[in-house]
Amino acid sequence: MAVYTEISDDDLTAFVAAYDIGEALSCKGIAEGVENSNFLLVTDQASFILTLYEKRVDPDDLPFFLGLTEHLSQHGVPCPVPVRANDGDVLRSLSGRPAAIMTFLNGMWPKRIDNHHCAELGRAMAKMHLAGADFKLTRPNALSVRGWRPLLDACEGRGEEVQAGITDALTQELDALEQGWPTDLPCGVIHADLFPDNVFFRGEHLSGLIDFYFACNDLFAYDVAICLNAWCFERHGDFNATKARKLLAAYRKVRDFSKEEMEALPLLARGAAMRFLLTRLYDWLNTPEGALVTPKDPLEYLKKLRFHQAVTGPGAYGLD
Amino acid sequence: MAVYTEISDDDLTAFVAAYDIGEALSCKGIAEGVENSNFLLVTDQASFILTLYEKRVDPDDLPFFLGLTEHLSQHGVPCPVPVRANDGDVLRSLSGRPAAIMTFLNGMWPKRIDNHHCAELGRAMAKMHLAGADFKLTRPNALSVRGWRPLLDACEGRGEEVQAGITDALTQELDALEQGWPTDLPCGVIHADLFPDNVFFRGEHLSGLIDFYFACNDLFAYDVAICLNAWCFERHGDFNATKARKLLAAYRKVRDFSKEEMEALPLLARGAAMRFLLTRLYDWLNTPEGALVTPKDPLEYLKKLRFHQAVTGPGAYGLD
Repeated sequence: MAVYTEISDDDLTAFVAAYDIGEALSCKGIAEGVENSNFLLVTDQASFILTLYEKRVDPDDLPFFLGLTEHLSQHGVPCPVPVRANDGDVLRSLSGRPAAIMTFLNGMWPKRIDNHHCAELGRAMAKMHLAGADFKLTRPNALSVRGWRPLLDACEGRGEEVQAGITDALTQELDALEQGWPTDLPCGVIHADLFPDNVFFRGEHLSGLIDFYFACNDLFAYDVAICLNAWCFERHGDFNATKARKLLAAYRKVRDFSKEEMEALPLLARGAAMRFLLTRLYDWLNTPEGALVTPKDPLEYLKKLRFHQAVTGPGAYGLD
Repeated sequence: MAVYTEISDDDLTAFVAAYDIGEALSCKGIAEGVENSNFLLVTDQASFILTLYEKRVDPDDLPFFLGLTEHLSQHGVPCPVPVRANDGDVLRSLSGRPAAIMTFLNGMWPKRIDNHHCAELGRAMAKMHLAGADFKLTRPNALSVRGWRPLLDACEGRGEEVQAGITDALTQELDALEQGWPTDLPCGVIHADLFPDNVFFRGEHLSGLIDFYFACNDLFAYDVAICLNAWCFERHGDFNATKARKLLAAYRKVRDFSKEEMEALPLLARGAAMRFLLTRLYDWLNTPEGALVTPKDPLEYLKKLRFHQAVTGPGAYGLD
């Protein structure tokens, strides 16, 4: 939950007047998202999401993020798209921050994951991977394999405060990941953060994807691996192979998933676990007491990492 | 900011189905309000506020709060009203808490108070005081003069952590307030928490009052005194007598404000300052580190109390 920046009435009125979206009737901070300040803006024409980009987002990346959702939407992927101001711009300034108005996406994210959610997710992710093919801008993934060792180093051995021995264990795992990380698998635009709270459903059906602020160019199969971790473990930590099979089977109906991608999946899933383990560990150790955001438990991802380390092949994910 | 309770999809769907309000399209936690969990619920028919009542609200008070807004609305006071479920009830249960769906009120609360806001507020408050006249239910004010000493006692002398000497100073002031508190002034239903974030405006005009969860039966002039404190001091602490005059003049055009009420105003304003000073002090001393809610500064209200102590008569508030 996070609203970091307050907007004055006069500033809001002037900001909204730069768009052809009618008069602002209401603007309420939303208790979701941890990177930016999000507001539900209701005008006499429609509802919108107003986002103020806080310091964790690099302003130079915003044209990629905003352009990508526009591109994906034009290619049939349901997602919020930036509204153009009267001068044609999608990115403006409000309360001293870069700001954008996005269309409102109906739907709610699933609090309890069922098998059908995983199938819908697999299908939508594959469509997104295909739809991003001819997007012109690129953005490297700063949180891929080369970014992990600096993150572990930044924890300065303090991981021991969370679990004894974790620093050595992660160092060893990083050696293996850096050595074995595949470089010749199919690449393109990936979402890189497709957790349940970024996937909306209306009834049984997926209604759209949100929050593309980690999107980047990387291995498609790595995006799949992130989702295996985020969607296919039960609350108590067990891996649910039926959900994984549903996800992968639905994905493969839309986009070819090569033998090489399948075989790389256990290693990619270890990497995906490492990535979220490290950012959570860093945040855990560096969140000031009294902060508005409760840091997420890094050990959840240590358990997921251990699971994938013990896997002998893609069959563990319910694949044939 | 506060969303304390998460709602599962299935629970929400079942809950919404008990009302004739259409299909839920979106339900987002709102980062406003500190007592309850509030969600902006969008259906294919309209927008609503869904409130889950957390432990600081006594469930026995809910029929008063919900009945009052319905009554006030029927008597021309713009405010959110509870939506009746298909069985006629306004109060149901969701995620283990009492829950109600309220109509959505357009408008935004003013972040910077101008004189015209104070005039609009005075007019609306007087109308509300008149409109509550024939409301059947009653609720005593637990946070009026008799409730203050127990609150100070509950701070166990730890006020000294905030400012040296404060416990003695407040004890002395309580003696004076208890002795001089008026009992024969006009009474009725008051809002008792009409801070700027509970008063919505659309452009220049007041569009409604929200958050009646401190409403009770007490002196009308005490409600006015609360507003003098909440609306007529500048950010740096100076009292703005022009704003007070605007507020009081507008109020008096709608409801008679007797000579006795006017003369009691300095003492009532001291009491109003005491009430918010004490609850803020208690919260300041008892908010656990790392809590999601940032406690408000009690000393802001000590300064306001000092101002009113130095006042010699109602003329200080811009009254003739």
